[in-house]
Amino acid sequence: MSKGKLIVVSAPSGCGKGTILGKILKDKKRFYYSVSATTRKPREGEIDGVHYIFMTENDFRQKVAENAFLEHATYCGNSYGTLSAPIDEHLNAGQNVILEIEVQGAMQIREKRPDAHFVFIAPPSLDVLRDRLTGRGTEDPEIIAKRVIQAELELSYQHFYDYCVVNDDLKKAISDFLAVVRAIELRVEK
Amino acid sequence: MSKGKLIVVSAPSGCGKGTILGKILKDKKRFYYSVSATTRKPREGEIDGVHYIFMTENDFRQKVAENAFLEHATYCGNSYGTLSAPIDEHLNAGQNVILEIEVQGAMQIREKRPDAHFVFIAPPSLDVLRDRLTGRGTEDPEIIAKRVIQAELELSYQHFYDYCVVNDDLKKAISDFLAVVRAIELRVEK
Repeated sequence: MSKGKLIVVSAPSGCGKGTILGKILKDKKRFYYSVSATTRKPREGEIDGVHYIFMTENDFRQKVAENAFLEHATYCGNSYGTLSAPIDEHLNAGQNVILEIEVQGAMQIREKRPDAHFVFIAPPSLDVLRDRLTGRGTEDPEIIAKRVIQAELELSYQHFYDYCVVNDDLKKAISDFLAVVRAIELRVEK
Repeated sequence: MSKGKLIVVSAPSGCGKGTILGKILKDKKRFYYSVSATTRKPREGEIDGVHYIFMTENDFRQKVAENAFLEHATYCGNSYGTLSAPIDEHLNAGQNVILEIEVQGAMQIREKRPDAHFVFIAPPSLDVLRDRLTGRGTEDPEIIAKRVIQAELELSYQHFYDYCVVNDDLKKAISDFLAVVRAIELRVEK
């Protein structure tokens, strides 16, 4: 059996990443979705090992010391990270591993994993993204403004990715994403 | 309009390359098939500019001196080459350029065109390829043996390509080739 491929996916909020990934992740034999570890407390309904791997601060620090994380970062006082071991297990079992992560995390992975393939999902334009983020409803304008700035920042990273799928029409975006994934499967490892 | 992509395709004889390319080249707006120049005399039915760009020895030498060829080589006393100018014209016009070429020519292009993408079409196995080449019929065993050796040589180059489409089932191979071409269209230029 040939090894699976490591596929890193990033997209600004409002680009339909969840819907696109949801579509392909139905094929559980072909794809494994990498679950992040976190020191954040589980929220109502969150299941350990499904939504996150929940860890104590001590366990997390221990794993950092053991170099067990492919990448890790801290947001709002909580630590988040991607453990290397499950990724390699699933790759060795012939499954593709989908790693959904924001741009800075992706850049850390680029350094460490030359075998990874990087896919960016982009909005048709910054204006459309602004409309999508604003149009979500009744939220605080300040939060919306922050989200737009964050999205702009993330968009500026798209040139570091290998493939860029533009989500203008969702059906076309899913078909494009599937084509990219298939091509990654057919890529010759150097 | 964004530029088209330069897609170099190689395959040993007997891998169905002609059928696969024929399928995608129907879309004449999206793809331009690069026509080779040659000093060989036209055969019955061959049209200048369609099957080959036919040139005199003198014109060919002149073009070589002008560095007008992306690659060129001599077989059986005739010269063959790929002119750069039409490729760039079509790429600039937003068309993908399909360049069908044997492995040594492809290696020359790899050196000169970092913007090119390389696709190899492979048989499911060397045994299957041997069967296909032998099974073609009433030909001289010596010619068949030469073809098998040539095919083996070409197969040894597949690791220099970016993508490898295995032609086991023709329908699947065409779908895979289309996925690769679409992914190349979505590739972020570095």
